[in-house]
Amino acid sequence: MSQSTTNEARFPPPGPAAELEEGGRLTPKFDAGGLVICVTTDAASGDVLMVAHMNAEALAKTVETGEAWYFSRSRRSLWRKGETSGHTQRVIEMRVDCDQDAVWIKVEQVSGACHTGRHSCFYRAVPLGQTGGAVKHEFRNERVFDPKAVYRDTK
Amino acid sequence: MSQSTTNEARFPPPGPAAELEEGGRLTPKFDAGGLVICVTTDAASGDVLMVAHMNAEALAKTVETGEAWYFSRSRRSLWRKGETSGHTQRVIEMRVDCDQDAVWIKVEQVSGACHTGRHSCFYRAVPLGQTGGAVKHEFRNERVFDPKAVYRDTK
Repeated sequence: MSQSTTNEARFPPPGPAAELEEGGRLTPKFDAGGLVICVTTDAASGDVLMVAHMNAEALAKTVETGEAWYFSRSRRSLWRKGETSGHTQRVIEMRVDCDQDAVWIKVEQVSGACHTGRHSCFYRAVPLGQTGGAVKHEFRNERVFDPKAVYRDTK
Repeated sequence: MSQSTTNEARFPPPGPAAELEEGGRLTPKFDAGGLVICVTTDAASGDVLMVAHMNAEALAKTVETGEAWYFSRSRRSLWRKGETSGHTQRVIEMRVDCDQDAVWIKVEQVSGACHTGRHSCFYRAVPLGQTGGAVKHEFRNERVFDPKAVYRDTK
């Protein structure tokens, strides 16, 4: 049985809204590109670490292994988080939303999630109440690793 | 000056990666549909309440007013959260991610965020370690309001 057949059996096509919202089976509503959105938070602090995408294979691997797998839209490939950097994510809990086009995973993050070296990709705050003209943001988080050192061998 | 001109002035087109990641201006990387992803969390508990999208107008209104505005992909229209249900979201903090194609808002949620009546749209957990066959999930959250009563006038 091919991998795609396996994943199709695991994730049947979504049914009507009532079944999507109140049914007991995971029937993800993949978009035209075969992806669902994944929000990843730090299980301890609750901070959002990153937003990425999963295809059926990445979702299946995450459910099976308890490690975070994603699909990289820029590289068009399956991607185990931390495979280059060592900054893996152990999944503590997975949730799915009402219409099953997004999942939320709470993880234990080794070092930082962001390729820029920060713990979270959301290291800048946008002050509210700004009206008119360019919108400024402020840096809130320091680097927890040196990206030049961590990604040295892949450049 | 038209609304779209106003928003273009507020959100200049994104520059190269170094500027996107380390610059001081909000230059959102809207997708082909003119949208960025928005992750909304409960400012008190850290729970992810919902995942939605914002166009330039929704983003500008959220920054200006401190209330959450979204763009509904299904209705193709700007949408102030809670305009029908009264379940508005006051934004406590806004963050933007490294490549500026996603924002994170921490909010005070009136009642529940989900149209099914739950506080969060992510009311089902997917147990990890399931291998082979259909993937089951488990309900974790009770309703905090009756959707039939709240949306009665709009059906």
